[in-house]
Amino acid sequence: MSVTRTLAKFLVTHKAVNVPQAVRHEGARALLNWVGCAIGASQHATIKRTLAALNEFSGPREATILGRRERVDIFQAALLNGASSHTFDFDDTHIKTVIHPSAPVLPAILALAEHQPVSGRDFLHAFLLGVETECRIGAAIMPNHYNAGWHNTATLGVFGAAAAAGRLLKLNEQQMVWALGIAGSHACGVRETFGSMAKPLHPGIAARNGLTAALMAKKNVVGPEQAIEGRRSFARVASTKFDPAAIAEGLGKTWAMAENSYKPYACGVVIHPAINGCVQLRNEHKLKLADIARIDLKVHPLVIELCSRRDPKSGLEGKFSIFHSCAAAILLNEAGEAAYSDAIVRNPAVVRVRDNTHATAQAGIAEDQVRITMTLRDGRVLEKYVEHCVGSVDNPMSDTDLEAKLRAQCKGILPAVRVEKLIALCWGVGRLKGVAEIARVAAPRS
Amino acid sequence: MSVTRTLAKFLVTHKAVNVPQAVRHEGARALLNWVGCAIGASQHATIKRTLAALNEFSGPREATILGRRERVDIFQAALLNGASSHTFDFDDTHIKTVIHPSAPVLPAILALAEHQPVSGRDFLHAFLLGVETECRIGAAIMPNHYNAGWHNTATLGVFGAAAAAGRLLKLNEQQMVWALGIAGSHACGVRETFGSMAKPLHPGIAARNGLTAALMAKKNVVGPEQAIEGRRSFARVASTKFDPAAIAEGLGKTWAMAENSYKPYACGVVIHPAINGCVQLRNEHKLKLADIARIDLKVHPLVIELCSRRDPKSGLEGKFSIFHSCAAAILLNEAGEAAYSDAIVRNPAVVRVRDNTHATAQAGIAEDQVRITMTLRDGRVLEKYVEHCVGSVDNPMSDTDLEAKLRAQCKGILPAVRVEKLIALCWGVGRLKGVAEIARVAAPRS
Repeated sequence: MSVTRTLAKFLVTHKAVNVPQAVRHEGARALLNWVGCAIGASQHATIKRTLAALNEFSGPREATILGRRERVDIFQAALLNGASSHTFDFDDTHIKTVIHPSAPVLPAILALAEHQPVSGRDFLHAFLLGVETECRIGAAIMPNHYNAGWHNTATLGVFGAAAAAGRLLKLNEQQMVWALGIAGSHACGVRETFGSMAKPLHPGIAARNGLTAALMAKKNVVGPEQAIEGRRSFARVASTKFDPAAIAEGLGKTWAMAENSYKPYACGVVIHPAINGCVQLRNEHKLKLADIARIDLKVHPLVIELCSRRDPKSGLEGKFSIFHSCAAAILLNEAGEAAYSDAIVRNPAVVRVRDNTHATAQAGIAEDQVRITMTLRDGRVLEKYVEHCVGSVDNPMSDTDLEAKLRAQCKGILPAVRVEKLIALCWGVGRLKGVAEIARVAAPRS
Repeated sequence: MSVTRTLAKFLVTHKAVNVPQAVRHEGARALLNWVGCAIGASQHATIKRTLAALNEFSGPREATILGRRERVDIFQAALLNGASSHTFDFDDTHIKTVIHPSAPVLPAILALAEHQPVSGRDFLHAFLLGVETECRIGAAIMPNHYNAGWHNTATLGVFGAAAAAGRLLKLNEQQMVWALGIAGSHACGVRETFGSMAKPLHPGIAARNGLTAALMAKKNVVGPEQAIEGRRSFARVASTKFDPAAIAEGLGKTWAMAENSYKPYACGVVIHPAINGCVQLRNEHKLKLADIARIDLKVHPLVIELCSRRDPKSGLEGKFSIFHSCAAAILLNEAGEAAYSDAIVRNPAVVRVRDNTHATAQAGIAEDQVRITMTLRDGRVLEKYVEHCVGSVDNPMSDTDLEAKLRAQCKGILPAVRVEKLIALCWGVGRLKGVAEIARVAAPRS
């Protein structure tokens, strides 16, 4: 059987009851993390401007833009929620493929769940199947595909979105083959966009297009038969590597979701260990910025290459400064998006500590490690070695960490009582009668 | 200046008055040809099923699906009209790049012209600028891009649609740069789809996405600066060849539209000379199928390779049979879509002549040539040499030919009086006060 058909058959026949409990729980964690990211960036100019461009053309306003009052049609909701959840580069990562798996898949099926009744059990199952689809096709063509210049979260996300939406639309096997084929005609997104608003739009575009592909297949719009492995398929055309075994082998036995990871801080992942260690020292010793004379960091060489901006002028530049990140995290006890406002970057206390923070690359320090020496004004010298940064595969964010991350992202957007309700809904997603309730609660007022 | 910015500046500053009259007339010919193709396939299952999938999600029903009564939002109209105009592979071709230039551009701006007032002069100008954009980027990366497996009408069409729509939206230079960048994030479509409904959907997807990109840029959604020439741009990522001079040189001096061509027959272009010659013999000698004993064709070798199906069982297979095509054209005095119905393929008179038609490859016969020997039942032997087939670059379809093609495509869909009105509107497009009238007249009832 062709790889496409093997995958399609799996997608339409797999039973929710056969998903291991740990994978289901990881799905709920990913959902909670994604909802927070979408709400957190919902007031960003990328979302406001895209909404301004499209709003007057909206169809039936059935769907929620997370964190916002406006309602739009399901395609626009998929686009906007996909975009907002990726705007701060704060969403989840499937380490093996470097795909951000939730951002293209969840907005597609959440929008669909506002159009037709979808139970939490089916929703979670469809989500896991969508993630499996994008990550398996990704594994078949990575890293060549990304190295060539493609933005894999966009190009592969559309297959995940089509698979997940197609499952909820109860496509038959042939229709699922077509849905994957039509998705392949929508696979797009290049890395030239990085640094512009078009980049976060990518998973939104993938979500909207994947949803469209599934709806078309449901009405028997005929797509190609060998969407994935065919000689002129997207996967073959857009990568110099193609390993079909990565797609077909072990379906239903291993789950990509089990390898998912979450960012505790809203900046490049290589500076996470330093932030993690500084926050620990801050809390263990009840430190304020004013207490600190100097910070010395022994880091992985990539930190120096990517994130050693000495004198950031804006919040965005601050994301590429390990010096700013440590100082801001000590001030705020976190390094969420708030640590990267222009105001924090200009804060004199932050600037003073930033100017007295120094980093040197050291052999033997891994990417998820750091060695910190902090000298206080009172003469004390504190040491901290972070062996595995929080958020790394070996030290995942706890459920409590994820809740705290979501709470920080919702601040000023959703009332606290609604935030707690949202957290409870995400943890209990598998038991929800109708998933639309999550969307309803995730907007400022219903 | 970067290639992207050079092109953007040209697109926003070029004046309609500086387009040569011959190019404007060619634009009107392309419009007329495109409108006919869109109407001709408007009842096809590809359109019906896609509409069935999307209709309930339509926004404001401002826009026309050519040839149909339903109205939809401008994005769906762009998608559906782009798809219908490419469904029968009967639309125009820019020979140098093998792009079908009208199908991605015209539906985008025609939909826009139903949303906001657009004069015929501005419409025609925007159309020409859009075609220039897609064909110039195409020239920079062809043939490697197509050979790799990309469907260039889709991938490059989105740039053309964005440019044309952006011009009508009066984007400034920076916004046009962004529009091209956002278009680059939407560039998609692979050749694996050929033979499925997803293939004709491609220019529709490009039209919808290009229109979306332009609307976003108008609201200052920020795209990349070097959308075309950047290291990770679509053009660089999706082709092993990149010749920036093909984009920037001679802007406003040469026009891609001047190299446009139109298909007289609804089948593979290599069998057009034989059809052309048979139709000429038919009319010169007032022949019926019953008069013919045998036809011998001396053809270019590609005919044998691509279109020598001996015993076609369906209309679609008939398109790949030079034998069927000649017989059907003698019966019908044309080889439009009607010549490729299942019924005509089964017609006993057609089958008899088809079975007595023979083709041999001959050196010295060019792709647009044929040498025909027709033996009649009364013993006469007729000869015909076609030096340049109608529709070829050296023997373009006349304005009258294009009118006849449109009339045939509209048969059974639009009343004759409306068809004549539509033809007059297309020829006079440059003087139209509001282009929306073309769309209005191109639907069965307004």
